[in-house]
Amino acid sequence: MDFLDLVANRESIRDYDSEKLIPEQILFKILEAGRLAPSACNLQPWKFVVVSSRQKLEEVRTTYSRSWFAEAPHILIVVGNSTQSWVRSDGYNSIETDLAIAMDHIILAAESLSVGTCWVGNFDYAALKKVLNLDKDEVVFAMTPLGYTKSGFRKKGQKSRKKMAEIVHFI
Amino acid sequence: MDFLDLVANRESIRDYDSEKLIPEQILFKILEAGRLAPSACNLQPWKFVVVSSRQKLEEVRTTYSRSWFAEAPHILIVVGNSTQSWVRSDGYNSIETDLAIAMDHIILAAESLSVGTCWVGNFDYAALKKVLNLDKDEVVFAMTPLGYTKSGFRKKGQKSRKKMAEIVHFI
Repeated sequence: MDFLDLVANRESIRDYDSEKLIPEQILFKILEAGRLAPSACNLQPWKFVVVSSRQKLEEVRTTYSRSWFAEAPHILIVVGNSTQSWVRSDGYNSIETDLAIAMDHIILAAESLSVGTCWVGNFDYAALKKVLNLDKDEVVFAMTPLGYTKSGFRKKGQKSRKKMAEIVHFI
Repeated sequence: MDFLDLVANRESIRDYDSEKLIPEQILFKILEAGRLAPSACNLQPWKFVVVSSRQKLEEVRTTYSRSWFAEAPHILIVVGNSTQSWVRSDGYNSIETDLAIAMDHIILAAESLSVGTCWVGNFDYAALKKVLNLDKDEVVFAMTPLGYTKSGFRKKGQKSRKKMAEIVHFI
């Protein structure tokens, strides 16, 4: 599929069939897109946590309480370590950008394999960090459900975006 | 092209033919991928600045002094406004993630159209902000050259990345 079609077709999915698990080889293809993502100085300061067990799913769901989120059979969480990422001379640390690139690759790879996602950033940060039992230097960045939609689901098929002329400047 | 192949084939390009301009319709396709990118609460707090004029190219090049960078016929700069982006209840502002997603879409779209890019974050921040004459609330995020390679250029064709088992955890 053409990349622009992929981008245009991707939507945040909030309709998951809890019974339809993602085959392992599909999961690994999605993770591979994150693994191959670029990062500042190629430091790859990330971990990808795939939550599929009943107990851990229940714990993670408490950190973002939405009925549609609770139906996803898998949740993928991107975790980072800011002591492993690049630091610019003015003190800027690349960790957030590195993790955003990996997550964006993962979201687009899932779309290309007809797996639904929804980038979630509005979770209870402290609670999720505790559920994942992270080391002190590790940070939780973002998470997404991974799953297939229920039968009969239809995408909206259109995006609301600013016009090109509002956001592009040629100089 | 399969999305995973696209990701695997993308490389940072540091070899540009200064005489080979990118046709306008190709530039707009690349920009369209950024325009359609998702952002927190769909706030789209971004501008994409395409630098192609001789004078502005010279000014931007002073903020990142590399001989290969000076040969690119276009430079695309992603600019943001953190007063327009989403803020979480704990004070986290999504601006950097929003801009990273747009830039990642742009980089991948360019690859899909055989246009070379190299994500540059190590520029002189204050100098670039001055060259672009930004409003006080605007921030420069990242830039990339856009161009075609010189004839005879060959990609490396391989990536150095951590092993899957090092970065993936199933729970």
